Amino acid sequence: MLEVFAFATPNSLKVTIALEEIGLDYRLVPVNLRQGAQKTDTFKAMNPNAKVPVLVDRSAPGDGELILSESAAILVHLAEKTGQLLPKDGPQRGKVFEQLFFHASGLGPAFLQAFLVAMQPSPQPGAKARALSEVDRTLGVLNHSLERHPYVAGDAYSIADIAHFGWVWRHQAIGAALDRFPFVARWYDEISARPAVVTAIAKTLALAQ
Amino acid sequence: MLEVFAFATPNSLKVTIALEEIGLDYRLVPVNLRQGAQKTDTFKAMNPNAKVPVLVDRSAPGDGELILSESAAILVHLAEKTGQLLPKDGPQRGKVFEQLFFHASGLGPAFLQAFLVAMQPSPQPGAKARALSEVDRTLGVLNHSLERHPYVAGDAYSIADIAHFGWVWRHQAIGAALDRFPFVARWYDEISARPAVVTAIAKTLALAQ
Repeated sequence: MLEVFAFATPNSLKVTIALEEIGLDYRLVPVNLRQGAQKTDTFKAMNPNAKVPVLVDRSAPGDGELILSESAAILVHLAEKTGQLLPKDGPQRGKVFEQLFFHASGLGPAFLQAFLVAMQPSPQPGAKARALSEVDRTLGVLNHSLERHPYVAGDAYSIADIAHFGWVWRHQAIGAALDRFPFVARWYDEISARPAVVTAIAKTLALAQ
Repeated sequence: MLEVFAFATPNSLKVTIALEEIGLDYRLVPVNLRQGAQKTDTFKAMNPNAKVPVLVDRSAPGDGELILSESAAILVHLAEKTGQLLPKDGPQRGKVFEQLFFHASGLGPAFLQAFLVAMQPSPQPGAKARALSEVDRTLGVLNHSLERHPYVAGDAYSIADIAHFGWVWRHQAIGAALDRFPFVARWYDEISARPAVVTAIAKTLALAQ
């Protein structure tokens, strides 16, 4: 049984979607961020970076228990463990990693910054516009990819789609719109309708209830 | 022959270090960021995200030429292509990806933000202190890892060390100090002295001359 320490957040959702898509047996353990549960010594012993999600895999090959943080690293681990959602070799494998790292260093931080600004009661003048400008820039890059092929890294649905979906899922909460990015909008609607994604969203949101 | 479109930047340095460590035949193609060469249509056809480095690998397995952006995705590609600097399986492989994604989403963006603030002629009040506070927080996380094992992801030098080194290399330029992070300082001194790293730094800096 895999354990995932998580909360109702974009990064937690990514892991839940992958687990539902692959059909692995898992248990979600809530870490209440509103109460600062990610900053306790117990949690920081698992992840010194004090962020959810964290995977505990006691069935990993090699020397026993694997405790893994960083949602995209967890996606790679689950994909390689099961041979799903990540090409085993060839150029398409490189393209999945390209998108995973573009997500981690580009689109994800842009959405996070816009979310943090949206949460502030009185943000600095221009802060919201600056944050949304970078969100739009990264959505434009994603739109360019999705104009050329159905999924973000090529012809096959992969963990790179799951990573990007995790944050794009929050576009309304940060005040972004997909109207100007028709290929992102088409992709977003398709991913949203996948049964595994519907189930994962429900289970992830339930962590905050 | 591998081609790397690069400039004298932390992200470019990562790729040059990996190529020198592995001993692959490669050619650096300068992309002059000061003249905006990364924003031309020619460059954006390779990377719509308009950032260096970009790798062109005409010897990749599968259907011909691979054009790859995102420095960490390039590191993964080079490691998997040669079987070096990344464990093939086991928990240590997961830990390398954990550190690569902590770098991409945490330490790298923190250093980049501090660098951008340091470049501003008149930054907003408190901006420098806020940026350096996040730099110090991420260096603290790295220090915690390096207190427990010699390299960032365990007992072996890997592409995760190369990724972190790329930005930590710029700590003086952004006004950060390693004094409070003795295990990072020990690691930084060791990596800096590796012959491949010395060569890579010289070749990368030469791109701006």
